[in-house]
Amino acid sequence: MYKFGVDVGGTTVKMGLFDEQGTLLEKFEIPTDKTEDGSHIIEQITKRLNQAMEEHDLTVEECMGVGVGLPGPVDEQGNILGCVNLGWGVFPVEKAFSEQFHGLPVKAANDANVAALGEQTAGAAKGRRNVVMVTLGTGVGGGIIIDGKILTGANGGAGEIGHITVNPKEEARCNCGKHGCLEQYASATGVVRVVKNLKSFYPDTGLQEECSAKDVFDAAKAGDILAMKAVQGLGEYLGLALSFVANIVNPQAIVIGGGVSRAGKILIDEVEQKFQKYVFRPCRNVEFLLAKLGNDAGIYGASALIS
Amino acid sequence: MYKFGVDVGGTTVKMGLFDEQGTLLEKFEIPTDKTEDGSHIIEQITKRLNQAMEEHDLTVEECMGVGVGLPGPVDEQGNILGCVNLGWGVFPVEKAFSEQFHGLPVKAANDANVAALGEQTAGAAKGRRNVVMVTLGTGVGGGIIIDGKILTGANGGAGEIGHITVNPKEEARCNCGKHGCLEQYASATGVVRVVKNLKSFYPDTGLQEECSAKDVFDAAKAGDILAMKAVQGLGEYLGLALSFVANIVNPQAIVIGGGVSRAGKILIDEVEQKFQKYVFRPCRNVEFLLAKLGNDAGIYGASALIS
Repeated sequence: MYKFGVDVGGTTVKMGLFDEQGTLLEKFEIPTDKTEDGSHIIEQITKRLNQAMEEHDLTVEECMGVGVGLPGPVDEQGNILGCVNLGWGVFPVEKAFSEQFHGLPVKAANDANVAALGEQTAGAAKGRRNVVMVTLGTGVGGGIIIDGKILTGANGGAGEIGHITVNPKEEARCNCGKHGCLEQYASATGVVRVVKNLKSFYPDTGLQEECSAKDVFDAAKAGDILAMKAVQGLGEYLGLALSFVANIVNPQAIVIGGGVSRAGKILIDEVEQKFQKYVFRPCRNVEFLLAKLGNDAGIYGASALIS
Repeated sequence: MYKFGVDVGGTTVKMGLFDEQGTLLEKFEIPTDKTEDGSHIIEQITKRLNQAMEEHDLTVEECMGVGVGLPGPVDEQGNILGCVNLGWGVFPVEKAFSEQFHGLPVKAANDANVAALGEQTAGAAKGRRNVVMVTLGTGVGGGIIIDGKILTGANGGAGEIGHITVNPKEEARCNCGKHGCLEQYASATGVVRVVKNLKSFYPDTGLQEECSAKDVFDAAKAGDILAMKAVQGLGEYLGLALSFVANIVNPQAIVIGGGVSRAGKILIDEVEQKFQKYVFRPCRNVEFLLAKLGNDAGIYGASALIS
């Protein structure tokens, strides 16, 4: 038996064909067509999946179903609750997808949750049942796996680690409308924002006005004081936020992924040190792991929705 | 069919006989015998339960089992992981209890989690599947119910809301060894501590040096500025901590219980206002409820462990 994992992003739709055990057999992608409020997206995905079935000579009977990661909240009844990036409103996405794909089982979930499930089933945290993943990219995403299953919450909003208020005194506004969210310090844009804010206090820095998060981490490794301050600030706030998560869900492992996580050990060490300072002792025994699957976490996790 | 709910506290063991539907038929209690490292506690409980079975003319075949709430972490394998209040170390408590009680099914869980389950199944949050309970007593306890089940975590440490670091700058130490835990502001002792710290700034206060949390709330209702400051501080930190919990687990309802919750509306209003300030918008739609079952939450929740 075979199954598909689909990761719908704002630019591309990544897809993978998996066997029943979750081994990736082939991956492929199409651009995301956002015209006409994204109304052609499902049709174009199913067309590409049908093509893959033909190429692999698969019958509908051999296909267990399709798991789908989406850039918006999905409730437990399989409804997408709006998805600005795709132009989607609220509708029963699992049902709509299934109707266009041979009536096969379709399970959808939020993309950050699906990435966490990917790392838990096939990546860095394989073998652990209770796992938290935080993705440090343009924004900060989060996903929580309890007893091998995605924690969805009452209306698909669980795991929103990036919008935990870590600094109630922050004056700048987050994209979400609040002040002092983790995302304002720990995302790629957040790290650069912090550097810009502090630059005038560190005239000797080698960092340029226009720099990337990677520049900041490289400079921190080379001993640049401003860059080190920014990385310490990230570590402080991310360690604090992850201590909240650990007090609340008590995971075995925390996986750190996304572009910013490529900073590697310098980041993990800083975060783990602050985490240990703030976490309640009985919850402190947590493995910190770097994500392994990169951009494939989504298709792995999506495929794991089907079993 | 019948079942028992047992709530083991440091002073008394509360017990209830329930029918299959979870209706409380009779309750009774015994003192907690902490002599010899609490090694007689289980024996004394089972003796009292046997007495209740005799009084109600129940056979072993009519008894579905016993749910037990304990003042310490219980892992998913039914082991208590130490319990200072009772003098207990680590041992398979469900197995030990069952062996002394006709081999019937025994399910144990942490008392704060069990109280949350009680309010979710039979109390203030009846009918909601995703519920968080926070108990403001001498300390601050927490319990999280996801999809009708207790969230236990990797080693029984989930739901430790009282030891979330809400003020990283706090100099005073919490009982747990950290600094700035919610419990330092939102427990009965915490409210009184805050009043003592601020008293010299408010010479006109009507509050005495030695006051109770109830005195503080009464004074706040009567317009005492110092008391109002303390209640606002409690609201600020509790609202902040609950916003973390909502971002992470996205519950439908938050139940506030414990002695401090008797302050009622003045407390809930303050907490909810701050919560709304700090919570991520998609997670903000939460009902705030006052606990209903009081000291019976434990036996109700314990009985709900058996089904």
